[in-house]
Amino acid sequence: MQTLSKIDLKFEELKSRLGQIEDLEAASDLLHWDQATYMPAGGAPARGRQIATLRQISHQKLTDPELGQLLEDLRDYEKKMPYDSPEASLIRLARRNYQQSMQVPAAFMAELSLHQAETYEIWAKARSENDFAAVRPYLEKTLDLSRELANFFPGYDRITDPLIAYSDYGTNTTTLLQLFRQLRRQLIPLIEAIAAASPVDDGALHQNFDEDVQIQFCRRAIARLGYDFQRGRQDQSPHPFTIGFSINDVRLTTRTYADDLNQGLFSTFHEMGHALYEQGIAQELEGTPLAGGISAGMHEAQARLWENQVARSRAFWEYFYPWLKGVFLRQLGQISVNKFYQAINKVSRSPIRTDADEVTYNLHVMIRFDLELEMLEGRLSIRDLPEAWNERYRSDLGIVPRNHSEGVMQDVHWYSGTIGGMFQGYTLGNLISAQLYETALKTHPEIPVDIERGNFKSLHQWLKENIYRHGRKYTANELLQKVTGTPLSIDPFVRYIRSKFGELYRL
Amino acid sequence: MQTLSKIDLKFEELKSRLGQIEDLEAASDLLHWDQATYMPAGGAPARGRQIATLRQISHQKLTDPELGQLLEDLRDYEKKMPYDSPEASLIRLARRNYQQSMQVPAAFMAELSLHQAETYEIWAKARSENDFAAVRPYLEKTLDLSRELANFFPGYDRITDPLIAYSDYGTNTTTLLQLFRQLRRQLIPLIEAIAAASPVDDGALHQNFDEDVQIQFCRRAIARLGYDFQRGRQDQSPHPFTIGFSINDVRLTTRTYADDLNQGLFSTFHEMGHALYEQGIAQELEGTPLAGGISAGMHEAQARLWENQVARSRAFWEYFYPWLKGVFLRQLGQISVNKFYQAINKVSRSPIRTDADEVTYNLHVMIRFDLELEMLEGRLSIRDLPEAWNERYRSDLGIVPRNHSEGVMQDVHWYSGTIGGMFQGYTLGNLISAQLYETALKTHPEIPVDIERGNFKSLHQWLKENIYRHGRKYTANELLQKVTGTPLSIDPFVRYIRSKFGELYRL
Repeated sequence: MQTLSKIDLKFEELKSRLGQIEDLEAASDLLHWDQATYMPAGGAPARGRQIATLRQISHQKLTDPELGQLLEDLRDYEKKMPYDSPEASLIRLARRNYQQSMQVPAAFMAELSLHQAETYEIWAKARSENDFAAVRPYLEKTLDLSRELANFFPGYDRITDPLIAYSDYGTNTTTLLQLFRQLRRQLIPLIEAIAAASPVDDGALHQNFDEDVQIQFCRRAIARLGYDFQRGRQDQSPHPFTIGFSINDVRLTTRTYADDLNQGLFSTFHEMGHALYEQGIAQELEGTPLAGGISAGMHEAQARLWENQVARSRAFWEYFYPWLKGVFLRQLGQISVNKFYQAINKVSRSPIRTDADEVTYNLHVMIRFDLELEMLEGRLSIRDLPEAWNERYRSDLGIVPRNHSEGVMQDVHWYSGTIGGMFQGYTLGNLISAQLYETALKTHPEIPVDIERGNFKSLHQWLKENIYRHGRKYTANELLQKVTGTPLSIDPFVRYIRSKFGELYRL
Repeated sequence: MQTLSKIDLKFEELKSRLGQIEDLEAASDLLHWDQATYMPAGGAPARGRQIATLRQISHQKLTDPELGQLLEDLRDYEKKMPYDSPEASLIRLARRNYQQSMQVPAAFMAELSLHQAETYEIWAKARSENDFAAVRPYLEKTLDLSRELANFFPGYDRITDPLIAYSDYGTNTTTLLQLFRQLRRQLIPLIEAIAAASPVDDGALHQNFDEDVQIQFCRRAIARLGYDFQRGRQDQSPHPFTIGFSINDVRLTTRTYADDLNQGLFSTFHEMGHALYEQGIAQELEGTPLAGGISAGMHEAQARLWENQVARSRAFWEYFYPWLKGVFLRQLGQISVNKFYQAINKVSRSPIRTDADEVTYNLHVMIRFDLELEMLEGRLSIRDLPEAWNERYRSDLGIVPRNHSEGVMQDVHWYSGTIGGMFQGYTLGNLISAQLYETALKTHPEIPVDIERGNFKSLHQWLKENIYRHGRKYTANELLQKVTGTPLSIDPFVRYIRSKFGELYRL
């Protein structure tokens, strides 16, 4: 065995410390997965305590000054390694995480976590009762805490910047506002044109579909698409999510409705996109913090690419519709693939973000993004939030939510996280997915034909090679530039929806 | 809010430290449960690493000198509290655990764990190939490590004593040898008499029984018996086990065979007994190390009591046989309850411990107990173990295993634990279950009649009141004396099997 130099030993020690933190995070993720899938009701109080303990120990280890010293000692070592080597990338990422964690006192983090858990419980009950008054004081405290959190990072331009950096490092409020403004200018006339066109009938999706059969179909479909069941599994949960405990154990959950085929199908393809990303990370990164998705936007892009660009395409259903018809012959026997394709791409101005189609979706995000900023900058109080929300839905989408649960209380984010930094990832994801897919098609124009024949390997391979395998070695901006040759732009997305929905609605 | 005194604060700090250790243990138990039930194959390597990390952190916290200092500071506080108060009991138990952990260097524990995990992997493969040579060097190292572990506790009488203390604190080798000798003297003639009697036909149990239907029956049955599905669940796994992550989340697993009804039914009732024990612990002990079973023997006793005294009784099947017949009408329609009762109580000299009936079971345990002692005391080498094993089966049970996998390689214990201290709990469990049940019947002679009517509350309530709720406040000996008025004795067990099997076999 080769003797390790002193500096190599330091690097090994860094890896071992970071590995312990990863193990603690994976354990606490498994506790969460279990809570959402199989845990009996009685387990909840102890579970909350157990997750809090693991997170606390993990935070202690992440802010251990000895870790900081190691990262200092490894500066020269890092410089000697290639930028995208696992070693340099690991040190760079660990330093960023360390510095971010050190800015925030542990006591504050504990207070925030506790408040978030409490608020979630209150919201889960109040939402079904449309009771905004019940959550108001909690949301006011969330706003205070969110501001306090941001202020641990002085020197920002806009107060949302440090909160955005938690999930979408490398971008900021000003950039996003500009991007969103451009996008909005393109979307509004398109949505108006679609509203004026002859409407699409999606009645085919709203019959009675056995939920077990839906799940079986989804299982077979994602196995075909490339999801590896030897390194993952699919379960049911009230809210679909994807979670990985290692590169080789990445699980997704599905929620189905008997009377809405959309939900089960596309939430599964969406989560599978997240899962393919994590299953595709290079094995050499396993057990290190590099073994994950780069950012909220980049992760969402992988989900949206499979959900929308692939699974809402005509080519996809040319292949899969006979499968689906086979299991739902009574319901779909008389429905043509074209009719089905139109139904799954119906555009409508609806109050719920998660139900939104590809065209209107980003408007929902912008509303939330703007409101977050207004609240944090003191231009909007929590008291006035519901009215501001409804006003924006009226002006942007021409609809008014019938109640708070389909209005300001619909999303879990503000009620379990912070105000600020919670929503931009969704629109970033939509933009990035279009930009990546356009590039993939340039290199491999055969992809749509492959898809029509049930061959998903050409696309999957391209994504593994260009995105998945790198894990967190690059920032989202770096990787996007490297892969597509240009910085983030709204153009590919706009081209994509104009072309697809222009044809669909004969605009 | 009342101000806490300095000493109260110390007690709160003790509770908080011990609570963290409990949370880490619960998390690592959940990782284990997941591995045995739902984890995809790919998850295994990371899972081993994650469990090791949690156990290491938990061990560090358990051997933190500050914990030792707290326990010293709390000596007076402990003395002022009643012996069986949660406070005094917690300090007493924590001190015992602390002292035991401090005797053994962390590096040794890490080496032992690693060796155990490796040996398990080798055994799992070698067993199916009957390849004792493959495990021999591993077992030799296990023997060395077991001896080394025992020697961290100098002053023992027999070398097995410290190993027994890990799982059955309060007893020792000399006591057990004497108890086992007495028991053996009673068993041998009984087994011979049964062998000479007219044999029982258990063909009824070996037909084709749909496994899903078996599981559904077991689920309904244990719900009826008192298992609380709001605070637990039942899953399938290759080896049945029970595991609790809190008093309010105690899960069991079941394994079924289509051609052997015995396995599914009685392993479920057995595991349910373990689970009722943990579900029945007083809520005030939740989250502390007091919230668990006292010892291997006491835990096993709860399992055996429900499996044997209850579920292998005639009264039990007077109630449940119509249920079972209802779901397996084709197979059992022509079989009387009496015939079924005889079948599930068939006595036979078989090579496998886990398949053994109530009469022969303890002989299997004694063989292992004696061999452990001989190996540790240097009178038997690993090389000669297979032959010694077979020789004992020949002399004690009149049979010779056909191969190592139904011989010396059948049990996981030596291949995943230590040699020494692994088996005595099973026989202790059998003895304690009989002693407890006899006492329960003295106070509540109506129990068998209640059981026949499907009312299990009188027994369950008695067990909760007398055993379950106390958790680990007492030692096994203390509790047995307190509840039954006498120390551990073989007499109730001997009375029980003589009466039951005397009648069954018309002796």
